Amino acid sequence: MSDIKRYMQQLGQQARAASRLMAKADSHAKNLALLNIAHAIRRDKQALLAANQADLEAARAAGMEAAMLDRLALSEKSIATMAEGLEQIAALADPIGEISDMKYRPTGIQVGRMRVPLGVIGIIYEARPNVTVDAAGLCIKSGNAAILRGGSEAIRCNQALAALVHEGLAAAGLPKAAVQVVDTTDRAAVGELITMKQYVDVIVPRGGKGLIARISEEARIPVIKHLDGNCHVYVDDEADAVKALRILENSKAQRLGTCNTAESLLVARSVAAAQLPALAAMLTARGIEIRGCAETQALVANAKPATEEDHYTEYLDAIISVKVVAGLDEAIEHINQHSSQHTEAIVTENYTKARRFLREVDSSSVMVNASTRFADGFEYGLGAEIGISTDKLHARGPVGLEGLTSLKYIVLGDGQVRG
Amino acid sequence: MSDIKRYMQQLGQQARAASRLMAKADSHAKNLALLNIAHAIRRDKQALLAANQADLEAARAAGMEAAMLDRLALSEKSIATMAEGLEQIAALADPIGEISDMKYRPTGIQVGRMRVPLGVIGIIYEARPNVTVDAAGLCIKSGNAAILRGGSEAIRCNQALAALVHEGLAAAGLPKAAVQVVDTTDRAAVGELITMKQYVDVIVPRGGKGLIARISEEARIPVIKHLDGNCHVYVDDEADAVKALRILENSKAQRLGTCNTAESLLVARSVAAAQLPALAAMLTARGIEIRGCAETQALVANAKPATEEDHYTEYLDAIISVKVVAGLDEAIEHINQHSSQHTEAIVTENYTKARRFLREVDSSSVMVNASTRFADGFEYGLGAEIGISTDKLHARGPVGLEGLTSLKYIVLGDGQVRG
Repeated sequence: MSDIKRYMQQLGQQARAASRLMAKADSHAKNLALLNIAHAIRRDKQALLAANQADLEAARAAGMEAAMLDRLALSEKSIATMAEGLEQIAALADPIGEISDMKYRPTGIQVGRMRVPLGVIGIIYEARPNVTVDAAGLCIKSGNAAILRGGSEAIRCNQALAALVHEGLAAAGLPKAAVQVVDTTDRAAVGELITMKQYVDVIVPRGGKGLIARISEEARIPVIKHLDGNCHVYVDDEADAVKALRILENSKAQRLGTCNTAESLLVARSVAAAQLPALAAMLTARGIEIRGCAETQALVANAKPATEEDHYTEYLDAIISVKVVAGLDEAIEHINQHSSQHTEAIVTENYTKARRFLREVDSSSVMVNASTRFADGFEYGLGAEIGISTDKLHARGPVGLEGLTSLKYIVLGDGQVRG
Repeated sequence: MSDIKRYMQQLGQQARAASRLMAKADSHAKNLALLNIAHAIRRDKQALLAANQADLEAARAAGMEAAMLDRLALSEKSIATMAEGLEQIAALADPIGEISDMKYRPTGIQVGRMRVPLGVIGIIYEARPNVTVDAAGLCIKSGNAAILRGGSEAIRCNQALAALVHEGLAAAGLPKAAVQVVDTTDRAAVGELITMKQYVDVIVPRGGKGLIARISEEARIPVIKHLDGNCHVYVDDEADAVKALRILENSKAQRLGTCNTAESLLVARSVAAAQLPALAAMLTARGIEIRGCAETQALVANAKPATEEDHYTEYLDAIISVKVVAGLDEAIEHINQHSSQHTEAIVTENYTKARRFLREVDSSSVMVNASTRFADGFEYGLGAEIGISTDKLHARGPVGLEGLTSLKYIVLGDGQVRG
């Protein structure tokens, strides 16, 4: 057995043992741990900034690009935000132990379900120290044990944060091994983490598409994953033109690089001549390149031609694909064919079409007259978010505490036996 | 591309297309299809018996063992039961399109969830024609498309049933490809089915442990699986002796070969001398061999010694392992260590211990004062069951229609954008 394998197996065993204690931990202890950690983070702000500074210098020396350095960097403000995040998680209702649907059956037994933790969650992410705190907080609150593997460039800061998390857990009477930070930059550790079935119940990768695709391919443990966000806005025949303009602007132009940003615009043929020029002018004014079908190009002078591939593309950039469609049927068909099943919105005043769009579009979030940018755990009121799942099994859409739990059946009887 | 691969890809494409139509099919059409199929099965009873007879003769000639022949055989009664099963599924509420948890958010959007089908479900099972009908019925009702791969020894009967299913679907205006029976006995078909990610959303294996373990290992698609049922009954210090005896008898002796049969008995030390002899006498009278710890052997003359492996074993036979434990803590620890997380029961009159057992035992069904034999979709009121999941993700415990669905988020707005 290699050293890395032995080390990871040890983390796994410790996590499994800790997960049993976390599963029965009461709400008070879990919340106390979260508040303790928040307090320790605020108290040790300077030490965290120093550890982060050392990480940044090493990363800069190694030639890390500016956008990555930006995500690695901590500030007084981002440290305060980390602590506040933990306090917000502490304020959420405890999902664990919640009992629902208790019903008497003709045999006299009473059957229902109880919400329980998943067990041990492995989280793999880039060099972003705030994810360490966020993921630790969500796992503690949901009664799970976590094994965290952040990008190696953040290792000093992650170690400093791990010490504070352990201090907070211990002071609340909870096991330190409830949150373990993988303490090696060896990439083989990831390979172990995503295959040690006996110790890890689910893997949550957070980061770029490449990272997530690779982990999904290689994992032998279920993965809650979040791949592309190729989101659509469909402007229906009966769209309110003002709402269409506002929703498209927000969906596409508010932020270019987020997964809930619209990457494709569909416009019903009957309103294309009336609405598309204004929509295109807004996009152009915001610096967004338009790649359209022939009809779009006829109506929008500066539109470039869109290829079939454009319709499958998540640009994460100042580009949008545009297509004129016959109406609702073609819009739904186009979306179900091309989208990544993340988030799609229709703009319409028509009740029946809104209802059909909601039912027939097969994406994790489907919206009527609202910006795709709302697809987010906080906006949905989950209070926290560990990612947005584009899978259908287990968790779909923004994943909050509930996505880190499972339901078991409970049966209450008075000595009943089966006939 | 091999012929089998080409054939399976074609089934996959057809299933994917059919799944879109099934997802938007209304409840009336789906129920009509189920009733049509039930009618056709009753009408063509003689032809089904003849096809089954041909299967049985070929299987007998090939040396199939008696227990398997038994499961393959149809009778007038089992054919009637198939048809009734479909009528029961038709009578259940349609889970698809159900909207829940709609709440207004401070931004003015209204957020909730809608229940939707998973898409395409691949079901792999042994030579049991009744599973063909059962699985088809559950998939139709839940708005999914199904690709069914039954044991090759049932192929004639499955083909005859497939024709009736297609007739029933078509007469209800639904696509025939909503239910496709793999029409080859080539085992390579299974390998294709469990890896063609683009066409299949989930695999449900039904059958022996070996089949399920192999499919879980090789599948590249999520699997809803059901492995061992190493179920425990714990007789607590404060157990009612009459209830303990009755519950143990039913849990262990009502049927030996089911997954919810108890395979292990734990008895609290303080009541072992008083209760274990009577419990053992009942087991012995039912022909069940007792394999116990040293304390058990001291109290029960005919008890054989239990090895550590016995405590991990699902016998599916007239054998039970017995262990005297210090009390609740040791019982919970022993169960969480040795059980297969299927079903466990405590017998106790103590409120606090019952509550702790429910919370701390990490199994898909946890019971107080009731027989483990109740762990079943019909007994729980699900109206149908496609299997019992011992996984934690997605579906846990008996899986009915709901386990074949997912929840997507829906958002209703009036032009809201994100600030």
